[in-house]
Amino acid sequence: MRLTVTRSCRSTWSARKLFDPSGYSSLVILHGSRHNKAFSSKDVKPNPVFEGYRRIHCLANIDVYAHQYGTTFRNPAVTKCAQPSRRNFHPNVSDDSIIFRQLLDYKSYTYTYLLADAATREAILIDPVIDTVERDYRVVQELGLNLIAAVNTHVHADHITGSGEMKKRLPVCKSMIAAVSQARADVKLKEKDLIKFGQFELEVRSTPGHTNGCLSYVWHDKHMVFTGDALLIRGCGRTDFQEGSPDLLYDSVHQKIFSLPHHFQVFPAHDYTGQTMSTVGEEVKFNPRLRRSKSDFVKIMKNLQLPYPKQIDKALPANMVCGIFDEV
Amino acid sequence: MRLTVTRSCRSTWSARKLFDPSGYSSLVILHGSRHNKAFSSKDVKPNPVFEGYRRIHCLANIDVYAHQYGTTFRNPAVTKCAQPSRRNFHPNVSDDSIIFRQLLDYKSYTYTYLLADAATREAILIDPVIDTVERDYRVVQELGLNLIAAVNTHVHADHITGSGEMKKRLPVCKSMIAAVSQARADVKLKEKDLIKFGQFELEVRSTPGHTNGCLSYVWHDKHMVFTGDALLIRGCGRTDFQEGSPDLLYDSVHQKIFSLPHHFQVFPAHDYTGQTMSTVGEEVKFNPRLRRSKSDFVKIMKNLQLPYPKQIDKALPANMVCGIFDEV
Repeated sequence: MRLTVTRSCRSTWSARKLFDPSGYSSLVILHGSRHNKAFSSKDVKPNPVFEGYRRIHCLANIDVYAHQYGTTFRNPAVTKCAQPSRRNFHPNVSDDSIIFRQLLDYKSYTYTYLLADAATREAILIDPVIDTVERDYRVVQELGLNLIAAVNTHVHADHITGSGEMKKRLPVCKSMIAAVSQARADVKLKEKDLIKFGQFELEVRSTPGHTNGCLSYVWHDKHMVFTGDALLIRGCGRTDFQEGSPDLLYDSVHQKIFSLPHHFQVFPAHDYTGQTMSTVGEEVKFNPRLRRSKSDFVKIMKNLQLPYPKQIDKALPANMVCGIFDEV
Repeated sequence: MRLTVTRSCRSTWSARKLFDPSGYSSLVILHGSRHNKAFSSKDVKPNPVFEGYRRIHCLANIDVYAHQYGTTFRNPAVTKCAQPSRRNFHPNVSDDSIIFRQLLDYKSYTYTYLLADAATREAILIDPVIDTVERDYRVVQELGLNLIAAVNTHVHADHITGSGEMKKRLPVCKSMIAAVSQARADVKLKEKDLIKFGQFELEVRSTPGHTNGCLSYVWHDKHMVFTGDALLIRGCGRTDFQEGSPDLLYDSVHQKIFSLPHHFQVFPAHDYTGQTMSTVGEEVKFNPRLRRSKSDFVKIMKNLQLPYPKQIDKALPANMVCGIFDEV
C-alpha cells in the first residue's frame, strides 16, 4: 500500500496519521500552510476517528480525498504512515520530550503512571496508591520533577488513593477526580476537560459503567490512553456494584476508547495476569467480552458472580475524601 | 548548550548522539558519506563510550573534534541531541519499527521481555518463566509473531525457565544461555555474540558476579539494556550462592553497564518494589550499593544475610536442562 498525492501538496506541509477503526484503513492528514487535506488508503468517507481528530485539532477546513492522485510521497514520515496497520503495535522506546514511568502496587495489582514534560519537568501522577506514595515521591524527587497533579480515574474500591498523602508531601500537587463522583478533590473533571502539564495535555473522556465517575485520559500526542477500570487488558472492570452498568460500560468503551486509532497504547488501572499494556486494536480484536455484541456483553457481565471486593468497605469512604480521613 | 560544526558538514550526513559517562557531556557522531566526525559539548577526548560505539559500528575513521566551530546545526535532530542530559530519562513511546512488551510473573517478581521486529515479525523472549508460558504463547500468537529464540540471562534460582515449554509449543524457537553456565541449550552464548531478530540485534555482554554465567543484552539501536540479575533497579542480584562474587559483580556492572550512555533504559530481570524500568544514569547516581566504592560494595554484599532462596533446590537443576526434566 502506498499513498500518493498531488504534486502541489509537496512543499510546506506536515503529516499526521490516523486509522479508521472499521477495517484498519489508514488516513493521512496533511497540515499545509494554506489548507489541510486528508488522504485515505481506501475509499474512506469522513468517519468518527477523523471527525474526532478534526474537533480536537480545531481543523475546520480539512477535506477528505477518497483516493490517490499523482505522485508518490517523498517524505519518509508519510510513506511510513502507509504501512499496514499490523505494524502499529507500539512499544517502549526513547523519546527525549517526555518521561513515562509505569509503577505497580503488588497488593492491589494497581498501575500508577508518572507522566512528565522532560523540558519543563512538570509531571502528573495517574492513580497513585496510598501504600506506594513513599516510592512514588522518591521517584519524583530523583527524576527532578515538579508534580502538579494527582489524577484519579475513579473512586477505587480495591485500594486507597495516594492523592491526599502525596499532597501532604507536595502541597503544590492538586488532586483531581470526576465531578460526578462527588468525591473531594481540588479539581473536579468533566468530559472534554484538558489536563495540562508542561507542553502536553490529556483529554478527559467520560467512560462510565464500572462507576458513574469513571474517566479515561487520552494523550493524543503520544498515542496513549489511560483507561482506568473501564477497559482492562482482555477484560474490563466489574459492573455489579458502585452504580455499575454493563450497558453504559459497553457504550463507553465502544464510543470513547475503541473509536481511537488502533495503534494507541492502552494503559489500564490494573492487570492481574502480568501484562503491562495493550493497544486499542488488540482489544477491539481480542477482548473476550467487549468484542462481542452488546447483549452478549451484558449477559456475560451479569453472570460473573464475583466475590465482594475485600477492600471496598475501607477503600470507598477513604477515596471519597482523597484518601485522608483526618482532613474531614 | 549548542553544538556547532563547520559548514562543510551540512549536506550529506546523519547524526547519532552519545553521552560520556564521566560527567554527562554529550557527543554527537556525524556519519558522512566521505568521513565520520564526532563533536562534543565540552573538551571530551576519545573515551570508553565513544570507543565502544566506534567498535560496534565498525567506524575506523572517526575523528573527535574537541570543540565547536562555525555555524549552528540546522537539523532539529541534532540540536535536540544537544539538550542537557537530564532530559534523557526515556519513556514508553511509539515506534513503528519494533514491538516491545514487558511481562510479569507475580509469583517470582520476574520480568519477561518480548522484543520483535514489526516488519519481519521475528521475535525473541528474554527470561520466560515456566508458569507464564501459556500467557506468553498467547501474546506471541495474537501479535502474529514468529518467536525464534527464548534467551535466558542466567541460570535462575528463583523460578524455572519457560524455554523448554515454549520450545514444545514452537519448535522453531531456540533456547539460549551463557556457555559458561554449562546449562543445556540450543545456543551457547558468549561475550560479543549478537542475537539477531529481523533487522535488529542484541549485543551479548558477560556480566558475572551474581552467577558466573550472567549475561546482559544491549539493544544499541533502541537504547535499552536487559541486565538480568546483575543490575536491578536501585539494587543488584545477591552474590552469596551459585558462584556469586561481589568483586566480580562490581566490575561487571561498572565496566559493562555503567559504561553505556546514561540515557539507556535499564530493564532488569526482577523488581520487588513495583518499578518497571530505570536508566543507566539513574543507577549510576542513585543505586545505593553500586554508586559506592568497590570495597564498600563488597562489605555491603557480604553482610546482607539473606534467607536461603525458597525455590533454589527445585529451580537450579530444572534450569540446567531448559526447564524440562523429561528431556534428560
